[in-house]
Amino acid sequence: MHALIVYAHPEPESFNGAMRDLAVSVLSEQGHTVEVSDLYAMGFTAHVGREDFSDVADGDTFNYLAEEMHAAGGGGFADDIQGEQDKMNAADMLILQFPLWWFSVPAILKGWIDRVLAVGVLYDRERRYSNGVFKGRRAMLSFSTGGPSSAYAPGGISGHMDIVLWPLQNGILNFLGYDVLPPFIAEGMGRADAEARQVILDAYAARLKNLENDQPLAFHPWDEFDDTLCLRPDVTAQTAGQGWRR
Amino acid sequence: MHALIVYAHPEPESFNGAMRDLAVSVLSEQGHTVEVSDLYAMGFTAHVGREDFSDVADGDTFNYLAEEMHAAGGGGFADDIQGEQDKMNAADMLILQFPLWWFSVPAILKGWIDRVLAVGVLYDRERRYSNGVFKGRRAMLSFSTGGPSSAYAPGGISGHMDIVLWPLQNGILNFLGYDVLPPFIAEGMGRADAEARQVILDAYAARLKNLENDQPLAFHPWDEFDDTLCLRPDVTAQTAGQGWRR
Repeated sequence: MHALIVYAHPEPESFNGAMRDLAVSVLSEQGHTVEVSDLYAMGFTAHVGREDFSDVADGDTFNYLAEEMHAAGGGGFADDIQGEQDKMNAADMLILQFPLWWFSVPAILKGWIDRVLAVGVLYDRERRYSNGVFKGRRAMLSFSTGGPSSAYAPGGISGHMDIVLWPLQNGILNFLGYDVLPPFIAEGMGRADAEARQVILDAYAARLKNLENDQPLAFHPWDEFDDTLCLRPDVTAQTAGQGWRR
Repeated sequence: MHALIVYAHPEPESFNGAMRDLAVSVLSEQGHTVEVSDLYAMGFTAHVGREDFSDVADGDTFNYLAEEMHAAGGGGFADDIQGEQDKMNAADMLILQFPLWWFSVPAILKGWIDRVLAVGVLYDRERRYSNGVFKGRRAMLSFSTGGPSSAYAPGGISGHMDIVLWPLQNGILNFLGYDVLPPFIAEGMGRADAEARQVILDAYAARLKNLENDQPLAFHPWDEFDDTLCLRPDVTAQTAGQGWRR
């Protein structure tokens, strides 16, 4: 297996940095190969712009999707975007490693998502969800939270973690066709001492050693939706269970 | 009323740009004052970094929350962050105007959220949710989607829009203490012609003229949660209704 870890934290000595290093080490020991995109170290550009493309489809009005289609059709992407797309195409497993900031990914990782995941290359109208480009490959969120897990439990003030993660796990990973593995969450890091951190790292190591046997989350497949992108009337929405099927 | 519109689109002539211009025009006609933060025009920095602060709390390990606390305690923020905090403090009404990209805000707006909404200034352990700094003020998401509204209906492949927006509406706007007005959504812009666009702009104008009478979404107030940040057992979670109370 070849894994790509996209890592987004400004401090190399952070706990997220330790999680990244651990993943590289454990996956390598298991005989896998690993590549890391360290977005801060790369100075990765976080905002979309004209400089994302080698050529111009429309020099007057800047429509990002239209420019992506033009680039995908031969116009070409900027080197940093092309490089990340190549890494994704080479990887059987994608891990996004980040601190949960404001209930989502840090802006630099959102920039990676906005810029790299281009229409015409990594998805289009026909290649989405269970027909996605990365069908049969695996992806996982691995992240830290400052607050306690109880805030993300049913009735928690932050909302159930499945709901908080829905835009990322359904709208990005499942959308691209990946089998989405359950997230690894380092919870309550705001108050974690050295011992608590080690317990979490040990749990992450155990999880990493068994990634290939992990059961993906359950999402309704593409053919259970009708032309309006709603579940077909004959399909019963399932909202319970780990996969939180709607 | 004084309104702040934080606008995040790289193309001034975009539909989001038209929505911004309309809001400035209609709110001004109503006798309100309006300020716009045009993040692309400002060249707003999207990623957090050491340059966000005038002084350094810890020069070895970069802990963003710790640096924010130090800045809030007198160390000082970078001018662009201080400027945005000042604008927020001056505004009775906050509108975030953006295209929904990957089921969230564009990276440059996430950068505004990550950098401007600093602990010790705009929130802390005591000042959150219904005890938040912006208690009694109003905030609203105003955004466009490419896909059809049916994809965000119950059973829709994108998930119910209330769930997609939960991290933004609960985790950011409600967290900061704002009364969160129902979002204004320009849906299905991927296929909208000039006539469809005008219908949406007219609807937005009507909405803007009546903002002061809008009924905010319902969220459980702070005192209905216990010390673990879960709803108290004697409080019944309400999941139905426009406010999608959990």
